[in-house]
Amino acid sequence: MTWSIYLSGEIHTDWREQIAAGARAAGLEVSFAAPVTHHEASDDVGVAILGQEPNKFWHDHKGAQINAIRTRTMIENADIVVVRFGEKYKQWNAAFDAGYAAALGKPIIVMHQAEHAHALKEVDAAALAVVQTPEQVVSILAYVIEGKLAGYTDRAQAAE
Amino acid sequence: MTWSIYLSGEIHTDWREQIAAGARAAGLEVSFAAPVTHHEASDDVGVAILGQEPNKFWHDHKGAQINAIRTRTMIENADIVVVRFGEKYKQWNAAFDAGYAAALGKPIIVMHQAEHAHALKEVDAAALAVVQTPEQVVSILAYVIEGKLAGYTDRAQAAE
Amino acid sequence: MTWSIYLSGEIHTDWREQIAAGARAAGLEVSFAAPVTHHEASDDVGVAILGQEPNKFWHDHKGAQINAIRTRTMIENADIVVVRFGEKYKQWNAAFDAGYAAALGKPIIVMHQAEHAHALKEVDAAALAVVQTPEQVVSILAYVIEGKLAGYTDRAQAAE
Amino acid sequence: MTWSIYLSGEIHTDWREQIAAGARAAGLEVSFAAPVTHHEASDDVGVAILGQEPNKFWHDHKGAQINAIRTRTMIENADIVVVRFGEKYKQWNAAFDAGYAAALGKPIIVMHQAEHAHALKEVDAAALAVVQTPEQVVSILAYVIEGKLAGYTDRAQAAE
Amino acid sequence: MTWSIYLSGEIHTDWREQIAAGARAAGLEVSFAAPVTHHEASDDVGVAILGQEPNKFWHDHKGAQINAIRTRTMIENADIVVVRFGEKYKQWNAAFDAGYAAALGKPIIVMHQAEHAHALKEVDAAALAVVQTPEQVVSILAYVIEGKLAGYTDRAQAAE
Amino acid sequence: MTWSIYLSGEIHTDWREQIAAGARAAGLEVSFAAPVTHHEASDDVGVAILGQEPNKFWHDHKGAQINAIRTRTMIENADIVVVRFGEKYKQWNAAFDAGYAAALGKPIIVMHQAEHAHALKEVDAAALAVVQTPEQVVSILAYVIEGKLAGYTDRAQAAE
Amino acid sequence: MTWSIYLSGEIHTDWREQIAAGARAAGLEVSFAAPVTHHEASDDVGVAILGQEPNKFWHDHKGAQINAIRTRTMIENADIVVVRFGEKYKQWNAAFDAGYAAALGKPIIVMHQAEHAHALKEVDAAALAVVQTPEQVVSILAYVIEGKLAGYTDRAQAAE
Amino acid sequence: MTWSIYLSGEIHTDWREQIAAGARAAGLEVSFAAPVTHHEASDDVGVAILGQEPNKFWHDHKGAQINAIRTRTMIENADIVVVRFGEKYKQWNAAFDAGYAAALGKPIIVMHQAEHAHALKEVDAAALAVVQTPEQVVSILAYVIEGKLAGYTDRAQAAE
Repeated sequence: MTWSIYLSGEIHTDWREQIAAGARAAGLEVSFAAPVTHHEASDDVGVAILGQEPNKFWHDHKGAQINAIRTRTMIENADIVVVRFGEKYKQWNAAFDAGYAAALGKPIIVMHQAEHAHALKEVDAAALAVVQTPEQVVSILAYVIEGKLAGYTDRAQAAE
Repeated sequence: MTWSIYLSGEIHTDWREQIAAGARAAGLEVSFAAPVTHHEASDDVGVAILGQEPNKFWHDHKGAQINAIRTRTMIENADIVVVRFGEKYKQWNAAFDAGYAAALGKPIIVMHQAEHAHALKEVDAAALAVVQTPEQVVSILAYVIEGKLAGYTDRAQAAE
Repeated sequence: MTWSIYLSGEIHTDWREQIAAGARAAGLEVSFAAPVTHHEASDDVGVAILGQEPNKFWHDHKGAQINAIRTRTMIENADIVVVRFGEKYKQWNAAFDAGYAAALGKPIIVMHQAEHAHALKEVDAAALAVVQTPEQVVSILAYVIEGKLAGYTDRAQAAE
Repeated sequence: MTWSIYLSGEIHTDWREQIAAGARAAGLEVSFAAPVTHHEASDDVGVAILGQEPNKFWHDHKGAQINAIRTRTMIENADIVVVRFGEKYKQWNAAFDAGYAAALGKPIIVMHQAEHAHALKEVDAAALAVVQTPEQVVSILAYVIEGKLAGYTDRAQAAE
Repeated sequence: MTWSIYLSGEIHTDWREQIAAGARAAGLEVSFAAPVTHHEASDDVGVAILGQEPNKFWHDHKGAQINAIRTRTMIENADIVVVRFGEKYKQWNAAFDAGYAAALGKPIIVMHQAEHAHALKEVDAAALAVVQTPEQVVSILAYVIEGKLAGYTDRAQAAE
Repeated sequence: MTWSIYLSGEIHTDWREQIAAGARAAGLEVSFAAPVTHHEASDDVGVAILGQEPNKFWHDHKGAQINAIRTRTMIENADIVVVRFGEKYKQWNAAFDAGYAAALGKPIIVMHQAEHAHALKEVDAAALAVVQTPEQVVSILAYVIEGKLAGYTDRAQAAE
Repeated sequence: MTWSIYLSGEIHTDWREQIAAGARAAGLEVSFAAPVTHHEASDDVGVAILGQEPNKFWHDHKGAQINAIRTRTMIENADIVVVRFGEKYKQWNAAFDAGYAAALGKPIIVMHQAEHAHALKEVDAAALAVVQTPEQVVSILAYVIEGKLAGYTDRAQAAE
Repeated sequence: MTWSIYLSGEIHTDWREQIAAGARAAGLEVSFAAPVTHHEASDDVGVAILGQEPNKFWHDHKGAQINAIRTRTMIENADIVVVRFGEKYKQWNAAFDAGYAAALGKPIIVMHQAEHAHALKEVDAAALAVVQTPEQVVSILAYVIEGKLAGYTDRAQAAE
């Protein structure tokens, strides 16, 4: 079984690449999916393909709906959904994705810094793990998928 | 049929009371549900009932999970979910509720001021109506539930 | 048990009233639901409540989405969905409702004149009855709900 | 992940071939499915296999039900459903498919000319994109599946 | 809570009336539903309402589909489905109902004489109780709904 | 897409082999599944593996439940369910499978001789095709899966 | 809305009565459901109604399946499931109910003494609250249903 | 079709290896999944990855939730769930898994010694087979997947 992991949320740092690199290094059988992380493309896709809109609301609406084709499909296909909240911005789409995944019964891992913990308490309450770093996500994946946990290798080896 | 309306989100203004008053004035057959809007009670409910926690994370966690018993049940029982984003705060729980409702296929009405439109575009894209005022919510409910629209009354009356 | 019947489709004749009158005369325990049948209100509800749109597409979009709050909720709550195709117009919303109801597994009764039978064959193929008149709908409801069929009354009475 | 795209609706022009060719040219990992587009075969399949019917209604019924085995299975297996309304005919089956897909929560792309916009407003309201040309469908697929949008290539390349 | 019990199957003896009388005598909070038990009405309902058919197959088809509106709705609304197989006839509709109820996860009680046990083993294997008499059904309902079991009354009384 | 076809019902003739041979000859991309057709093994599997039972009822029960592991899983995984009723026996398990498949929304093809039509009318009413021969099943599969219909080849070829 | 609470698990102390009394004292709009708590009746119900079994396994099996009619129906109808683990016995049925409720997405409250915490960690991990006393359950219900929390009454009163 | 088998429960004997070896010897097309069976790793995974907790309850909670990512995903992906109860310990997680699998409609095989039969009667009542040895599980898999039953080979061979 190849596990499908959807990486939702913040798009301005390379946390997705770090997780992917870590998973590769650990030899995990995973495939990653993500929203389109090109910010301008994501904002403009609606009008670029479907035609310009004088009203910014509809400009955004057309783009957000096309993005939804991608994101909702990927969340529904995911075995695990990781949602990262960054330092800045409202990031309501990340919280929306978490709620969407929660209602579908997907296991959720939330990643954020400690200062956001209170504001994110409802999101965290729906998660099966709350982490701060990509390394922790990789460690969880290694454990969940391969049963490997650093420092606990003896019997795991014996069991194979 | 009595329609169940869940009013999610911002808890510092009286928008819920305005909607309820408007619905009452319009004679609509609706019942409203909402999260616990007493901010301190909502924050402390976990430790107040289940015992103190030295670590703020678990303090929040216990409270958020008890609140989830109420909010998820009410969202699942709702015919329509209204989500209001206020002027301040992160309000990630509101966006989470919107995502949760969307995945359940609930009709969603989002209420927010124009300046949040871009940041909320993914949430709005999942809504069947985006409004700015409680009056608009009442007007939508009157139309959806009773088929009444101000200024279009002639034939509607005849149809009854 | 009160049966909920959703009456979808054509809005320019009084077929809904005929069915309701027939059901009343037969003493059936039913409640009827329907889309808003005031044509202008239905077309304009979006802009009337949410604000004018210079582009007719968005004018229609806003209205159709508010109508969807009503129609999808009512179809999901219905025990039986009746869909009538009239003599005129495209009536794609009626066919859309039929498809929506079919995917939800709702029993469907389709009503249309013989000349539309070939064009409606896919819709009819998803129905449990295809009729031409409101009287036939009432007869089906009387049979389905009360077990009554004109001319077959002896044993039915005995069974009560 | 190979995306499954169901192409519903009008069968008298080569729009399906245009989309397939465009997707091939773009190197997209997609598979396409469609109803049987041989009009006479589609009309006659029921009686050809199951035996003649003197009554045209049952002739149509048997054929439409066999076609339903194909179309409903393919819609249920699709990641995205594209529904095209052509210039002519009632095309109620296309609207039926759109309703069916909507109730299943499938992302829907509707394709039609501007003059049908008002009559199709309920169908469009259930779509995540409304387009006029096969090229637009291909552009959406390229964006949704590969994250590619013409003119926004720099960062997308860097992200790979 | 009023429990809904669907009584499927054999229609030539008064087992339904016996169960209803027993439940009434026991003061159980139940409502019973059943297919139309007037054999001729059930056979002819399709052509009586929708028009005659020269071909017996379509005569039966139209009737069976109208009956399905009633039976499927009632099975879906039932808390418990009781299926009785009589001494005679093929009774494939009873087995069909049992399979239908099983796939919906409904608790099933099957009633039949011992000589049919081998032929009904797949149906019995999907049941939570296999009985021979209406009295046994009433006893099960009294236990399941009220917690009452003849001869075990002391503590049950004390617990109230 | 490889279509999964479950072949339920009668186990004393070679109709499954005929369908499989026909599908192979037609080059269809299908896989077939079936209950265990070794009659004695099917009857005895429970006690053979789990231990003897003096009471025939439990002998049957243990066997029927192990068979259910196979049959329910295969029906749930099937794209199409074919149910054949033979000349003899009660065959309640076939009707049970049909009801099970119907409640899951699976497309159903029923195969039986004309003399059983009236007794099977409820089962037939839930089917999308009613046939008499394995050849007809193969023809339906060829049409549904490949879009091929004997005698209607011209345009179908052109479309490829 | 009347909330339905299912009280699963230990049957040898009066914790259910304590919760019911507390809820009554608090004026909560709730209804409680529970398994049959008469131990002998629960053990013997199968053979008492369906006939004696020489083999204890089938004695238990028949009883457990009849009890399942009650318990599964009540869990599926519940808004909240409370599961209590007592001091003694294996109580595997309590853990089974918790798993059953968890898969259905029901909010779960687990009640047990501290010494069982480690052995129950998987069950607790699926709960939204872990408590030790009936009073805590009542407090949670009062908060979840009425929004009332002892010591936080000022604003809650004002909000009404 | 490769069947997915989830092996839940007791982790101190080599029953999983015995089943896997038996299945390999029988040439069955199966894949096995299991919880992490390294006891210490399973207990400590939460704090090892997410950070130490002074309170044992949260130590356990974090670990149990990470394990739940693995176990719930694997149960949901399984075609068959085998649950083994060993001689010792509370094993509430095994019963929880059984309840979880039951609510999802998964076929369940329970393995335990005779002395636990009464205490496990509710779990057994939800199973399609109750066994004592790994060999019996392999025999069931061989029958369910390949239709092979020792001693009944003649006709099965002929059927291939």
